[in-house]
Amino acid sequence: MAGEGNHFVGVDFGGTKILAGVFSPSFKLLKTVKLSTKAERGVEAVIERIARAVRDAVDEADLDLKQIRAVGLGAPGAVDSEGGRVIYAINVGWENVPLKKELEKRLGLPVFIENDCKASALGVYHIELKSKPRSMVGIFLGTGVGGGLILNGELHAGENFAAGEVGHMVIDADGAKAGRAARGSFESLASRTAIFHRIKMAVKDGQKTILTEMLGPDLEDMRSGDLRRALRRGDKLVEKVIAEAATHTGVAVANLICVLGPEVVVLGGGVIEALGEEMLPVIQKRAQELLLPGTSNDVRILLSQLGDHAGISGAAVLAQARSK
Amino acid sequence: MAGEGNHFVGVDFGGTKILAGVFSPSFKLLKTVKLSTKAERGVEAVIERIARAVRDAVDEADLDLKQIRAVGLGAPGAVDSEGGRVIYAINVGWENVPLKKELEKRLGLPVFIENDCKASALGVYHIELKSKPRSMVGIFLGTGVGGGLILNGELHAGENFAAGEVGHMVIDADGAKAGRAARGSFESLASRTAIFHRIKMAVKDGQKTILTEMLGPDLEDMRSGDLRRALRRGDKLVEKVIAEAATHTGVAVANLICVLGPEVVVLGGGVIEALGEEMLPVIQKRAQELLLPGTSNDVRILLSQLGDHAGISGAAVLAQARSK
Repeated sequence: MAGEGNHFVGVDFGGTKILAGVFSPSFKLLKTVKLSTKAERGVEAVIERIARAVRDAVDEADLDLKQIRAVGLGAPGAVDSEGGRVIYAINVGWENVPLKKELEKRLGLPVFIENDCKASALGVYHIELKSKPRSMVGIFLGTGVGGGLILNGELHAGENFAAGEVGHMVIDADGAKAGRAARGSFESLASRTAIFHRIKMAVKDGQKTILTEMLGPDLEDMRSGDLRRALRRGDKLVEKVIAEAATHTGVAVANLICVLGPEVVVLGGGVIEALGEEMLPVIQKRAQELLLPGTSNDVRILLSQLGDHAGISGAAVLAQARSK
Repeated sequence: MAGEGNHFVGVDFGGTKILAGVFSPSFKLLKTVKLSTKAERGVEAVIERIARAVRDAVDEADLDLKQIRAVGLGAPGAVDSEGGRVIYAINVGWENVPLKKELEKRLGLPVFIENDCKASALGVYHIELKSKPRSMVGIFLGTGVGGGLILNGELHAGENFAAGEVGHMVIDADGAKAGRAARGSFESLASRTAIFHRIKMAVKDGQKTILTEMLGPDLEDMRSGDLRRALRRGDKLVEKVIAEAATHTGVAVANLICVLGPEVVVLGGGVIEALGEEMLPVIQKRAQELLLPGTSNDVRILLSQLGDHAGISGAAVLAQARSK
């Protein structure tokens, strides 16, 4: 089995959706296909859906599977990239799934898998930053918070492929708990889950927000974009909650700069895509306050422009790098 | 100028003392000499004292400077290892000192300098762990808190030589401030300075401790060893303060494991030398509670046995590595 083509497919596989993108040999994105994950149908069904997303995207691009060299995929949770297994992925309920082997069987193509945030970091580093910095910290704020480290030009895997879990860093040991995240962890303070939770609690406490006019009293189906719209209409509650999340993000950024000394820190993920422009000045200010004078305070802190395409781009980069 | 010999001198240069050790070609420690730093006498005088400590140690070992290949030195603060400059070192009041050049002029030998905690990490990694793990995080609890990262067998310098400043990680954004450290930083919660501060505050608040019997009501000249003695006599206040510092250290250890995925975490420094056995179980317990199941929770967390000699050992390793 070998991919004979020179195109790549990158897949971003998450708790709610599967996004597959077809890339040209020079990493131009040709077409994408999005399917919902439907994790509740079980592992087998989801793997079949991933394979279908790949086939459909290739067809959308007027290509044939034979024109694909390899498929890369970013999966949520802990991923054994070398062994091709998802060790566990809480938000789809997977444990020890040999995803690489199962997809290769279905597609007849080489498949390479990686943690979704590590894949996104690869995408940001190689596609967006053209592999120029020596080192980069990628931080992705979405439903949860994840990250990926590029050190000396290489993705840092860590023992047991466990490096880069920046969302689990405790930054406020006395802080609030949200969802599954550890008490006071970065994720429990700045993920979309945490932000939505704080807004809902504030509304229950009787605080006013335009969001209840927009979405109804229970704030059902709230999305990050709703927060952006509320912010731009001058909503004080949303402003406060987003500023708090940004301040916490600034602390996490400073921590990572102190420990790793990267050349650049890039922020991405759904929360940043929607609210990054509003959050960046607060993040930068808080990080600068905490950094040592004369050393780390000239590290660039940027917003990724890849948005939703960071994951598929990075997965395609992975496919290329591993199939060489 | 070239060192013709095959022995090495390692120097640990700190706020209160200068320790120089002479090592055989196989890194057996032959002799040490300790001088007080006397930072108040100015940069020139301190550099002269460092040179004297090196000469005296070589003489103590019945050797001649000609039998030394190179000198390595760990200095406090931010060190430009390649340029041979101490960028700044708060606790001796130095800024932008060309220490390498000045010492080479005085000694007629190649001198290599590094941040003191990075040097200690090198010593622990190469001398104590025989360079076996692929990656190691070294954490040193003393007057302040510093660290050194070994990734893929190499010391990770970071941009501007600023990596490894683990003491500046904020782990409790609502936490107490101590000394110069940032609010809620690991250093402000678990350094000797922080521990002593908490004990003194508690005594002022009227809490009882054997320490006042041992040292008088103002707890003058308190040392880490006094805390160990108090602990072993069942002192409840010291027990509580040390347990808190150990709990905070456990949080920092878990954070570094999440981000870096090291094979081993080694704890050292004066606080650990005196109190490590009492602190380790608390540190390990807290770290395990915070780590993700199935991935990082089998990372080994150890106490360095090098004690006060970690710095000079690592400086000697540096001297060897750089003079090859």
